[in-house]
Amino acid sequence: MKTKPETIVIIGGVAGGASAAARARRHSESAHIIVLERGPDVSFANCGLPYHIGGEIADRAKLSLQTPESLRTLLNLDVRTLTEATAIDRAGRQVRVRSLTDSAESSISYDKLILAPGAGPLRPPLPGIDSPRIHTLRNLQDMDRIKDAAAGVDHAAIIGAGFIGLEMAEQLRHIGRKVSVIELQPQVLPQLDPEMVRPLEKALREKGVELILGDGIDGFEPLPDGISAKLKSGKSLATGLVILSIGVRPESALAKDAGLALGPRGHIVVDAHQLTSDPDIYAVGDVCETMDPVFGKRAAIPLGGPANRQGRTAADHIFLGGKALPYPGSIGTAIVRVFDLAAGITGWSETRLRMEGIPYQTVTVNGGSHAGYFPGSETITLKLLWSPEDGRVLGAQASGKDGVDKRLDIIATALRGRLTIDDLAHLELSYAPPFGNAKDVVNVAGFAAGNIRDGLLVPVPDLKSAGAQIVDVRPAADSNKNPVPGARNIPLGELRGRLDELDRTQPVFTICQMGKTSYFAARILANHGFDARSILGGAHHQV
Amino acid sequence: MKTKPETIVIIGGVAGGASAAARARRHSESAHIIVLERGPDVSFANCGLPYHIGGEIADRAKLSLQTPESLRTLLNLDVRTLTEATAIDRAGRQVRVRSLTDSAESSISYDKLILAPGAGPLRPPLPGIDSPRIHTLRNLQDMDRIKDAAAGVDHAAIIGAGFIGLEMAEQLRHIGRKVSVIELQPQVLPQLDPEMVRPLEKALREKGVELILGDGIDGFEPLPDGISAKLKSGKSLATGLVILSIGVRPESALAKDAGLALGPRGHIVVDAHQLTSDPDIYAVGDVCETMDPVFGKRAAIPLGGPANRQGRTAADHIFLGGKALPYPGSIGTAIVRVFDLAAGITGWSETRLRMEGIPYQTVTVNGGSHAGYFPGSETITLKLLWSPEDGRVLGAQASGKDGVDKRLDIIATALRGRLTIDDLAHLELSYAPPFGNAKDVVNVAGFAAGNIRDGLLVPVPDLKSAGAQIVDVRPAADSNKNPVPGARNIPLGELRGRLDELDRTQPVFTICQMGKTSYFAARILANHGFDARSILGGAHHQV
Repeated sequence: MKTKPETIVIIGGVAGGASAAARARRHSESAHIIVLERGPDVSFANCGLPYHIGGEIADRAKLSLQTPESLRTLLNLDVRTLTEATAIDRAGRQVRVRSLTDSAESSISYDKLILAPGAGPLRPPLPGIDSPRIHTLRNLQDMDRIKDAAAGVDHAAIIGAGFIGLEMAEQLRHIGRKVSVIELQPQVLPQLDPEMVRPLEKALREKGVELILGDGIDGFEPLPDGISAKLKSGKSLATGLVILSIGVRPESALAKDAGLALGPRGHIVVDAHQLTSDPDIYAVGDVCETMDPVFGKRAAIPLGGPANRQGRTAADHIFLGGKALPYPGSIGTAIVRVFDLAAGITGWSETRLRMEGIPYQTVTVNGGSHAGYFPGSETITLKLLWSPEDGRVLGAQASGKDGVDKRLDIIATALRGRLTIDDLAHLELSYAPPFGNAKDVVNVAGFAAGNIRDGLLVPVPDLKSAGAQIVDVRPAADSNKNPVPGARNIPLGELRGRLDELDRTQPVFTICQMGKTSYFAARILANHGFDARSILGGAHHQV
Repeated sequence: MKTKPETIVIIGGVAGGASAAARARRHSESAHIIVLERGPDVSFANCGLPYHIGGEIADRAKLSLQTPESLRTLLNLDVRTLTEATAIDRAGRQVRVRSLTDSAESSISYDKLILAPGAGPLRPPLPGIDSPRIHTLRNLQDMDRIKDAAAGVDHAAIIGAGFIGLEMAEQLRHIGRKVSVIELQPQVLPQLDPEMVRPLEKALREKGVELILGDGIDGFEPLPDGISAKLKSGKSLATGLVILSIGVRPESALAKDAGLALGPRGHIVVDAHQLTSDPDIYAVGDVCETMDPVFGKRAAIPLGGPANRQGRTAADHIFLGGKALPYPGSIGTAIVRVFDLAAGITGWSETRLRMEGIPYQTVTVNGGSHAGYFPGSETITLKLLWSPEDGRVLGAQASGKDGVDKRLDIIATALRGRLTIDDLAHLELSYAPPFGNAKDVVNVAGFAAGNIRDGLLVPVPDLKSAGAQIVDVRPAADSNKNPVPGARNIPLGELRGRLDELDRTQPVFTICQMGKTSYFAARILANHGFDARSILGGAHHQV
């Protein structure tokens, strides 16, 4: 056991910093634990900020999980808000601080230092960027400002269609504002693969959100009673309020000035115990790089869950040394709700696997959130990615109205356990009609993946990748109501009797509503000697 | 690759049998697949039967997932309903069958035979058991009879408080019947540990269900307009309708007569490919014994999910032989909804571990279904069991109003991956305020388990196991409103200043509302030299 440190200084008092402080106190009643926070608040619910703007979390006080006073009382912490750390003297083990109330400067000695300053919203140096109509959302004060500003405008422009951008779009529609979302990528939620966000884009548009995709911002110009956003395409957009949500940048200037090792994008490099290149300094949360446990690569994942658990990991290492458990890395599980739809990801996307040149296979299936014969079942679309070498699951994405979080969490757990597609096929999940399925969509994804590996299912990712001979195997009524362009309709039940209508010299591409019957049809055809391929996800997925 | 079989005969056309038939057809268009079903229906939703009786599934037709006709059309199956298999001639590879419509007998040759007859409800030979007022629930006809009978009675008695018994109790209350549930064990849902079902028992009683626990049935006597159930305690209960749901017995008489190996409780013994002791005969579903993958012991798990996947496994082995994937065993994941509460289990319970003499440790924690600051979060109580040797998760149970299924499924996946408590601590689950928590209750269970292993948390399972010096560390207002018997109140924030009020010569037992603050308090006390122990689950769990 190490000698117990006398003084632990923590820079940053929100997710990672607050968790580190709390865990340190559980280890020691005698340590002097000083929390330095530049803002007026500690331990607030940063993920909840959009929902107070939209009124869904009506009581602002609910967002203050702790106050400086409560942390003093409950954890005997020395909390110093409105106090900025300006320099680290590593040789002397001191932090230089400045009070933001009276500008007084002083130095604080530490035995161990934990850096938890987080990441700040990107604010690119564009013309007109300093307008007071342009906001970012990081803390309660930002939230208050946006809430006030939103009250006085008709229309808001959101720059960046990531998780926060979409949450803001939803919440501003809740309070009746017109909303445009501008995104440089040709899709919303660029963390997900493009085809998986089509339902979200449809839902956003149906709810009156204007999506301007594949276009960026060149600058802003003031208007008499608003602001004009100039787009790269040459278009301009007049609005009353701009919210910038194009990403975050780690607040690592202090660490850089102190000579700590940084990664390629400016994140603090840490080991598995969150220790930086200085043996007395830890870094946790959005400011640091961690490991991706799927492939062991470095990754920076700015999310609340990892930040909290990294804070705990650092505190454990301070008190337990080598006996402490390492942080196992972040797989990047994330979810967003957009009106009545949810969508999310865990592990690696197809886009990212392709960019990194990593071999993968993929399948997309649909299934009910619970038994289809029980009221209220909603369709979930699940995309699974795995390694063709050993069947190991590499990632998944899901969207739907209910149960998306559950399926992502099941696969996040599978990723942690390095499970394979065959393991997914045989997961024994809770089943009663209100809750699940005898064959859950996760099982079905495992079945389908195994069928692809074993050659039983020859998949086609989507309709536009299909060749000329497309057969829609849905019942005639469904096919007539919502025809598949270019397809002829042969309902599954008639297929065996109508094989001679098909051209055996070219492939047959089968499609149905949900992607299951088309597989059945392709099996029939393959067993009769056809080159048969099934279009994944069915008509449901061809948005 | 094996020679393809010409004729596959499947006895039983519901979950396991129907899955086997469908999967076999995907492998081969040419095989003659004969499905023998004693009843008039195939592939019906047996888990949905209670919900049609209670009107929640209004349309009876929804329970027929397939019909004999649809299976013929879609899968080209030779479906023979109302046809009973009466004997197996293994040497001659023939099944003797009798038509239940005209009693005609005949023989059917098979290359491969799959036994999927299921398990029938137990109906013990008690006096008066043959009364038409006594029902069991297995198929659509049973359902229709119970629905008709329920329409004409005031009160129903349900014998057996397992999953089906509780579903029936709920549904009969839905349609306004008075309901009594009689259970031989001193608790409902004996698959779960007693303390985990207390909230269910409370909810049942609050909804007007009479629970008669720790009492059994000795027999029945007719009444002029009803029936009297005679209890072992000497009490008797007058009712209009009795539903027997005391368990099931495998329908293995045919297998036994044919000399196939059976397990100690009459289940057909199969290998990992569902093959019986005859190399041409498989058994799947409730009729067979499978393996418990947690400890590798034999187990019979009569549930729909395993049955479906076992059917698939058998069909794969017929066509792929040694290349087919084995069935990995059943861990016994199960869930039930009772009014607005859900409760369930995955893996081993404490009761079962204790009975088998297997070392275990356990912890019970509470957490929100999603972020507490976002509307609608409900408390989940989660009990985790793990091996003290290596930290491997052995099982879990959960109850609550929302998100119980998700947590069970996460831990079911962890069981499949043989994950440890430390893995649970670091699961990276989907977090946005409407869906989850930065530290989910599953993470918290992992944290708490690790704290127990590392000596940071000395747990006491419940209030009645605590010694004399109990300290309630909740705020005074909460403590006054709902005092803990025998406890003195010292709110956490005051504890450090009031240590001298406590007797250092005897242990201090801390309790709070949810089991978290009491841990914080115990850490303070332990770090100040006290023998401090925290009462698990808090006042919330001491029902």
